[in-house]
Amino acid sequence: MRASQFFFPTLREVPAEAEMTSHKLLLRGGFIRRVGAGIYDYLPLGYRVIKKIQQIIREEMDAQGAQEVLMPVIVPAELYQETNRWQEDVLFRFKDRVDRQYALGFTHEEVVTDIVRRDVRSYRELPLNLYQIQTKGRDEPRPRGGVVRAREFIMLDAYSFDRSFEDMDLAYQKMWVAFSRILARCGLDAIVVEAESGAIGGKENEEFMILADSGEDVVLRCPQCGYAANAERCEIGRRPYMEGETEKEELRLVPTPGRRTIEEVTEFLGKKPEDLVKTLIYKCGNEIVAALVRGDRDLNESKLARLLEVKRVEMADAETIKRVTGAEVGFAGPIGLDDHVKIIADWEIASLTNFVVGANKTDAHYVGANLHRDFEVAIWGDIRVASAGDPCPRCDGNLDALRAIEAAHIFKLGTLYSEAMGAKFLDSDGREKPFVMGCYGIGVSRMLAAIPEVSNDADGIIWPISVAPFEVVILLLNPEDESQCIAATRLYEELLDAGVDVILDDRDERPGVKFKDADLIGIPIQVVCGKLTSEGKTELKLRSSKDREQVPLDVASNQVLKLRQMQHQELLENAELACSKRKRST
Amino acid sequence: MRASQFFFPTLREVPAEAEMTSHKLLLRGGFIRRVGAGIYDYLPLGYRVIKKIQQIIREEMDAQGAQEVLMPVIVPAELYQETNRWQEDVLFRFKDRVDRQYALGFTHEEVVTDIVRRDVRSYRELPLNLYQIQTKGRDEPRPRGGVVRAREFIMLDAYSFDRSFEDMDLAYQKMWVAFSRILARCGLDAIVVEAESGAIGGKENEEFMILADSGEDVVLRCPQCGYAANAERCEIGRRPYMEGETEKEELRLVPTPGRRTIEEVTEFLGKKPEDLVKTLIYKCGNEIVAALVRGDRDLNESKLARLLEVKRVEMADAETIKRVTGAEVGFAGPIGLDDHVKIIADWEIASLTNFVVGANKTDAHYVGANLHRDFEVAIWGDIRVASAGDPCPRCDGNLDALRAIEAAHIFKLGTLYSEAMGAKFLDSDGREKPFVMGCYGIGVSRMLAAIPEVSNDADGIIWPISVAPFEVVILLLNPEDESQCIAATRLYEELLDAGVDVILDDRDERPGVKFKDADLIGIPIQVVCGKLTSEGKTELKLRSSKDREQVPLDVASNQVLKLRQMQHQELLENAELACSKRKRST
Repeated sequence: MRASQFFFPTLREVPAEAEMTSHKLLLRGGFIRRVGAGIYDYLPLGYRVIKKIQQIIREEMDAQGAQEVLMPVIVPAELYQETNRWQEDVLFRFKDRVDRQYALGFTHEEVVTDIVRRDVRSYRELPLNLYQIQTKGRDEPRPRGGVVRAREFIMLDAYSFDRSFEDMDLAYQKMWVAFSRILARCGLDAIVVEAESGAIGGKENEEFMILADSGEDVVLRCPQCGYAANAERCEIGRRPYMEGETEKEELRLVPTPGRRTIEEVTEFLGKKPEDLVKTLIYKCGNEIVAALVRGDRDLNESKLARLLEVKRVEMADAETIKRVTGAEVGFAGPIGLDDHVKIIADWEIASLTNFVVGANKTDAHYVGANLHRDFEVAIWGDIRVASAGDPCPRCDGNLDALRAIEAAHIFKLGTLYSEAMGAKFLDSDGREKPFVMGCYGIGVSRMLAAIPEVSNDADGIIWPISVAPFEVVILLLNPEDESQCIAATRLYEELLDAGVDVILDDRDERPGVKFKDADLIGIPIQVVCGKLTSEGKTELKLRSSKDREQVPLDVASNQVLKLRQMQHQELLENAELACSKRKRST
Repeated sequence: MRASQFFFPTLREVPAEAEMTSHKLLLRGGFIRRVGAGIYDYLPLGYRVIKKIQQIIREEMDAQGAQEVLMPVIVPAELYQETNRWQEDVLFRFKDRVDRQYALGFTHEEVVTDIVRRDVRSYRELPLNLYQIQTKGRDEPRPRGGVVRAREFIMLDAYSFDRSFEDMDLAYQKMWVAFSRILARCGLDAIVVEAESGAIGGKENEEFMILADSGEDVVLRCPQCGYAANAERCEIGRRPYMEGETEKEELRLVPTPGRRTIEEVTEFLGKKPEDLVKTLIYKCGNEIVAALVRGDRDLNESKLARLLEVKRVEMADAETIKRVTGAEVGFAGPIGLDDHVKIIADWEIASLTNFVVGANKTDAHYVGANLHRDFEVAIWGDIRVASAGDPCPRCDGNLDALRAIEAAHIFKLGTLYSEAMGAKFLDSDGREKPFVMGCYGIGVSRMLAAIPEVSNDADGIIWPISVAPFEVVILLLNPEDESQCIAATRLYEELLDAGVDVILDDRDERPGVKFKDADLIGIPIQVVCGKLTSEGKTELKLRSSKDREQVPLDVASNQVLKLRQMQHQELLENAELACSKRKRST
């Protein structure tokens, strides 16, 4: 490719719309352009990266025996209705001219299960793993970071079908290997964490996380034993606690006119948030519960739901709160609550003395509240969101908190979808059984952002060679200079012949512009054809290390091939390493 | 690939939902499955074909200097509103959670023009041609033939931007070459015809048509001079006509109670349709016109609009018809019409005598009507749909009518979109000018159907080797037989090593099933490893000709490579030929 004929509109100024580093760089380098909120064009540079990621995905998925298909973007409502997902709030829904309903596919469990229930009859046709690389639409409330969280995005989604849970575990393990290798080959160092299953469902699931300060997820990791989980999911270890020495104060009712929030109450009473206990009123089914967590903690609704063995819990409305507490919203507490309201408390509450709670009276709180003397707890459990410093649930270490971008998510679905949709096969024992499924997703367009988010410097992006839009750039500094021109063109042709993905910057631009653009768009190997060509030399530069070396023109292409080979080799070795780490840890 | 691990659910029975041959074969062979009306899954076999077509497209588009991008499926309403296409009736429209409006992209002129108006400033950045291979959605009123006319489909769409109309002509010519080569390399023999531009607009445009009896388009072609056009567009030659010898009858008013249609009137009067002249009342803007064509002809609204120099014409409503004719609908005629209604007639009417027309009186017609004596025509022109036997507009030949499937459509758009959207560049003369555009589309998923529609036999599909899901199948007839197994596996590995796309049918199935499936799914080269392997031999069979030859095992892979090379070579030669035909004819 000649740069003079290639469309990559670089911007000198930092676009106002972008906050994340990768977003700025992808806009400045001419990789993507915004079309609407969370909707992007992939320009030639960006789409070259996407296609290289896709190729790596295909190689690794095929190596694990998965087979590529393409399911529709337009999904008939009936399919999502079969599994009660038609009401998911991220669906873009629409009708056709005869008023039939559809949604943009946001994930394809139903569509693929429909294929398999129609066309697979016998255990002899299993295992089966179907994958696609496809455009998805989700009406995200908060699109963010360009293609990091978009409303239209490209995703790899794979679905495994097995005879038994044991076979599903094997299929899951294979996808674990494929995903570890895919990310490593794309230059990403992922950590695998336990996670919440969200709208997909199923019990066991793991996320592949890329650590980045700008990431919107929080990962908690134990430096001692390696346990790691998404904050949404992370368990908190329970430690034996000493009976406090503190003397129990008297319980006193204090007027707190108009003070409802933790901030308002602590400020008014001259206390710290950790001196309070929050009382949150929840509905689960027909039951009302009061959940207690320390004032500076967040309740984790998924944990509460699991503890109560229900699918989901919902915050009670103002009317219900008034009914069970006898007070306006903001003054709920565990003392003197309606008898029908079960009190659930986080383990941590057990170690507190003389705390502040709402008084179940409008404009009043209790101070000096104490467990047992003033109220009893019906159910104890781990119901709060874990945060930095919390005890590890697996060892006696304490958790670190790290920000991360979710690159992939894999799920053991079991028979969740196959039972709902009546997808069965005939097993060798002559009995009909539901398929045991797994599903596996990688955000392909998100990787386009995640890679530069973690691999950049002040000058621009540093692409790993495996997914760089070009492997090599030849900077022809002065296209008018015959010796430079001959040297650059000869090198260009030699590299093309050797199968190198190379771009020749033959534009009528100043050398400074060419150097800046090459660094901005992040081509791994740069070959400078400038004044040195008259001495029969060229300069090779690596984008990552900025190492430079002068090389005689006649060995330059060989040297480039060697560097290129080394860089590819390193990524393949990382892929091996990523898998062997797993082998050790399981 | 081993067939035992490959998902291709073949069906023995012909699916009831399919009428077209290709649709039946693609369902039976396990290439596609229906998800909803006009919405399909591509199973592994089908998607392999699609990917090979895509690869050929990329090679040919890149060779012409076009650059690949990916634009969104979700298109904000504002873009289509800029060009007044938001109301096109094939749009799937929807809203997001804050009530902003979107449509599924049905074609991307606006989106690509938006890229270019934002990022291209100068004539020095031109020419530019951006293409994508993307999923589109159109709410087609009549989805048909499986993926022939689907509501979700895969399309190549390319858009060229130039400084001048001359440069646009060159860009158009390049796309002509690319498209001719793409279709030829996919084994399709296309004829290029003049066409209507429909919702895309622009003046000059051509379709690439694949002749097939099941096609929904009609192409008219002159066997003498080669002129060819879609029936929607085809001009009709004007021949000098002799003053008829027939004596003019008297004009008579005849009661025709309740007879409104051509069929009813001709039957009632004992006449033939060609003895009638139809009078069709149309609105164009504020004007009302009456258009006359012979009773057995169809009016061509595009021709009428062009003749009247308006964008479109619209049939008058019943009320207007009553007002201008003074009669119920069904009895309009040229005699005694309201003076404000201009009479437009097809040339053919000039040669008629003693014809039947509506009387502008409810339940009555005139017989023995004659031009000049009974009424005058204001404007003459070519306003009817051409049909077989009509005079060629370019020579003195007569047109043949052929059925065809539209594979591609290319347009010279000029400044239609760039002016509407204010997309301008600075030319070398220092003046701002609108980009001069072209657009070019190929139905990629439609090709998946068009190829087997024209290339099949009683046993199944005959894929050209370039896009066949596999190039070679090795039929291991008895996997239990050691000699067969060793021979087949060795051959399989040799071919894999040589880069051949080969499938080994190692399934535990009867030989008959394997032969039938290989023919049904249409693999070009079949290698049979059966009893002959014990004599050191194998049988090679070509799917297309059914030629068989016995070959010693040790030369079998070489022989397969030779056959494969020949088949690829032939398609490449066809591509050269397809372009040289064009060069001769322009």
